[in-house]
Amino acid sequence: MEIEVKNIEKSFDQVTAYWSPALLAQLNGQDVRIAKLKGEFPWHQHDEEDELFLVISGHLEIDLKEKTLQLQAGEMVVIPKGTQHRPRAQEEVHVLLFEPSSTLNTGNTENEFTKKELKDLR
Amino acid sequence: MEIEVKNIEKSFDQVTAYWSPALLAQLNGQDVRIAKLKGEFPWHQHDEEDELFLVISGHLEIDLKEKTLQLQAGEMVVIPKGTQHRPRAQEEVHVLLFEPSSTLNTGNTENEFTKKELKDLR
Repeated sequence: MEIEVKNIEKSFDQVTAYWSPALLAQLNGQDVRIAKLKGEFPWHQHDEEDELFLVISGHLEIDLKEKTLQLQAGEMVVIPKGTQHRPRAQEEVHVLLFEPSSTLNTGNTENEFTKKELKDLR
Repeated sequence: MEIEVKNIEKSFDQVTAYWSPALLAQLNGQDVRIAKLKGEFPWHQHDEEDELFLVISGHLEIDLKEKTLQLQAGEMVVIPKGTQHRPRAQEEVHVLLFEPSSTLNTGNTENEFTKKELKDLR
């Protein structure tokens, strides 16, 4: 695959649906994904995968069982494997995700949000 | 380790030297590192590791054998393993790096830029 510079924010133009991650890059068995989020996602956990959220624009809340994380643009957090979490966004948020290519967006649950195929923006 | 939101740009306050990556987070055997770059780094390659550069601020050039990549803030690129590259920055650049925790900053070379121990900002 060609070595190509990606403008992260511009890549969101190709993301049309909420909660539907698109694949921006792959490296070392890991995916760089981008997603537009709005509303409330189901509680879930990833049994085997740590997941990084990096907010590109907007304000993301991630509920954990014991607290709620607040992330603004330019902020990031790693949700360790096995940690129940629920992303929420009152207004549209653009996030970059870094996680193993095996990661299912809804983790240990399957529901109407589950996306087994990612749009490929590489 | 506690689940903690990191402000990426503010974390650079704790990075005092150029070309000296600091560890911001670890996940799935991978590091999220940040580095201040200025000047020209030696040519090198990582034989086993793909490396992601994401520019947080400034303008980064990465020489490849066949072309030079130009990255502005909000842009990223993956340098595949085995690819000779040379980062360069006329003015100070802040970059975020994703790469396996095993990655040595100077890859297959060892010189005065080599950093075997990373400052730990976690």
